[in-house]
Amino acid sequence: MTHPLHPRIQLSKESIFSHMSRLAVQHGAINLGQGFPSNPPPAFLQEAARRAIGTVDQYTPPIGLPRLREAVAEDLGAAPEDVVITAGGTEALHALAESLYGPGDEVVMLEPYFDVYIPQARIAGAEPVMVPMRLTDRWEVDLPALERAITVRTQALLLTNPYNPTGSVFSRTEAEQIVALARQHDLWIISDEVYDELYFGPPPIRLRELAPERVFTVGSAGKRLEATGWRIGWIITPPGLAPQVAGMRQWSSFCSAAPLQAAVAEALPIARREGFYAQLRESYGRRKDLLEQGLRAMGLQTFAPAGSYFLTALLPELDAETLVREGGVAIIPGSAFYLQNPAPRGLVRFAFCKTEAEIEQALERLEGYLKKVHS
Amino acid sequence: MTHPLHPRIQLSKESIFSHMSRLAVQHGAINLGQGFPSNPPPAFLQEAARRAIGTVDQYTPPIGLPRLREAVAEDLGAAPEDVVITAGGTEALHALAESLYGPGDEVVMLEPYFDVYIPQARIAGAEPVMVPMRLTDRWEVDLPALERAITVRTQALLLTNPYNPTGSVFSRTEAEQIVALARQHDLWIISDEVYDELYFGPPPIRLRELAPERVFTVGSAGKRLEATGWRIGWIITPPGLAPQVAGMRQWSSFCSAAPLQAAVAEALPIARREGFYAQLRESYGRRKDLLEQGLRAMGLQTFAPAGSYFLTALLPELDAETLVREGGVAIIPGSAFYLQNPAPRGLVRFAFCKTEAEIEQALERLEGYLKKVHS
Repeated sequence: MTHPLHPRIQLSKESIFSHMSRLAVQHGAINLGQGFPSNPPPAFLQEAARRAIGTVDQYTPPIGLPRLREAVAEDLGAAPEDVVITAGGTEALHALAESLYGPGDEVVMLEPYFDVYIPQARIAGAEPVMVPMRLTDRWEVDLPALERAITVRTQALLLTNPYNPTGSVFSRTEAEQIVALARQHDLWIISDEVYDELYFGPPPIRLRELAPERVFTVGSAGKRLEATGWRIGWIITPPGLAPQVAGMRQWSSFCSAAPLQAAVAEALPIARREGFYAQLRESYGRRKDLLEQGLRAMGLQTFAPAGSYFLTALLPELDAETLVREGGVAIIPGSAFYLQNPAPRGLVRFAFCKTEAEIEQALERLEGYLKKVHS
Repeated sequence: MTHPLHPRIQLSKESIFSHMSRLAVQHGAINLGQGFPSNPPPAFLQEAARRAIGTVDQYTPPIGLPRLREAVAEDLGAAPEDVVITAGGTEALHALAESLYGPGDEVVMLEPYFDVYIPQARIAGAEPVMVPMRLTDRWEVDLPALERAITVRTQALLLTNPYNPTGSVFSRTEAEQIVALARQHDLWIISDEVYDELYFGPPPIRLRELAPERVFTVGSAGKRLEATGWRIGWIITPPGLAPQVAGMRQWSSFCSAAPLQAAVAEALPIARREGFYAQLRESYGRRKDLLEQGLRAMGLQTFAPAGSYFLTALLPELDAETLVREGGVAIIPGSAFYLQNPAPRGLVRFAFCKTEAEIEQALERLEGYLKKVHS
């Protein structure tokens, strides 16, 4: 026997998303679990990447390829100097955790939460403090509970808008009250906005516009352009902080994949100009409706998402691993999104970034399974 | 004013390599500083990437695309289960730092060292302990000093072979003595072997072959295939540890760029079969000789590299920033590679992964500059 690994390794367990995807492949199940699209990226992005290969192949600055920083800034109405390119939203969040908090600090998040937030906070040495969202016929921020969770140790609020897994989007009042709280207690806000272009009502409020001095916005080309495996994300920092955040990310992956950075730089203005995001919303809207109507037709309660490509619903209690094995459908159990509070009974998350045929077949399988098990 | 960033942000300064590259661009200097090739990646790698775009675009498992894990294992004589794919050598080293050490721990390294080692150890909470190499007419490991540096707090030895910046390669005796020390004190060894195919004498010893139970080998497709910006690296772990290490890396960038993973999987066996590495060695050997002979012709002392694409030399003392501005040549000052011990007087590192024309012109400029300054 050799030396043990560092105790931190207990944070290294396989994510529920990877786990369910692996089971889905193993059992030939339809994967409405992990949130990656069934469609390939748009042709204009693919073509740009093929052209970049062989011309942009060496290290870029850790802060990002200049033309990509400019394209992101132009798209989001930010200054290019405040943009840091990262290896997907995951590395953006990792770099911010390392830049903003350490041992003895607390980070306040909402529950249900997206899985990377907890280990990233703990790797930085900080403790997550979870505030459960209120679930009535919709998901709502419990503002008094959020305020009660803030202590002298709190460094940041970590929020998601549109929200994974709930699909909810902050109302203007919620957004303004959250920002007022952060101002009053002098907290940073990390606003994970990777689904910023995926909404089914009014466009989500960008927290940065309410408090540019304290909001770090996280974005993702993978989510916007259906290329989740390309690992191109970004951070818009408060003015003047980009070089410092980039200086931290250089120690985790040095820079993002250079030819893919060049491709995204070319694709962002095309996507905007040619209405790609509107088409995306229309296409995902259809799939959301299909899933929602199918689940309701089975008599299940669903919570209409205002954004993201996820839908939450309450199912008769079932074991997600048994469902994937015996029912042929992979979903994510609600408990995977709760750390300190109990998950609402029967809560599950469906990803509808799949083809309509896949969604239809998954609905059919689920109905058959529920009938078999609960009759 | 808002809240300060976490004090850890002091680790975020711009690396000397990025800094010198930026100055080189600014002043139109020839960049023999940062180690990225002037050549594009080989056509077979480019073609494979163009084919992968549009077919392998979504998340891969954090541990890597199965076919790439198999290709790396096949190439290195390892088991596919022991391979973790990472976002370049940098993320491999980052994931190992997080997996192996924490506050109160020490990591023993040689000096001169490669820059990411120090902040990565400190981000994990550990303290680097530096053992200077002996410089006579060549670079040698000071084994008694290495042994004296080991304490009860030491968790790992972090070594590089072939070595950046010295270009040295461990002799069999050095390798065996290092491994014996690690066994005796029950230490992990992180063996950074990103230049494994770049040598000018006998192939470097792979430390893993001497102690598979305790050596983590770090490798890089970027270095082997001249695509440093693609960010595809790997770790070969001791048996059974790959899932745990992959579980840590999933929190820093989730997975490596999917289409580029697919391309490297296709390219590794082609590179081996078609003798690409032998051509690479021949081509770099010519450039090394050109640089070495040019520097010697100026009366400068050089230390013949046995591997890597770096060459160290002693120059009359000069300021590297003045040289890039006034002499038009970017190099890396030796002091950048020393933390706890003084750098040998006049030590500098040259990267010779540039075209012969660039090397010739750099030599000419350097000669002119030295004549002007030291006459």
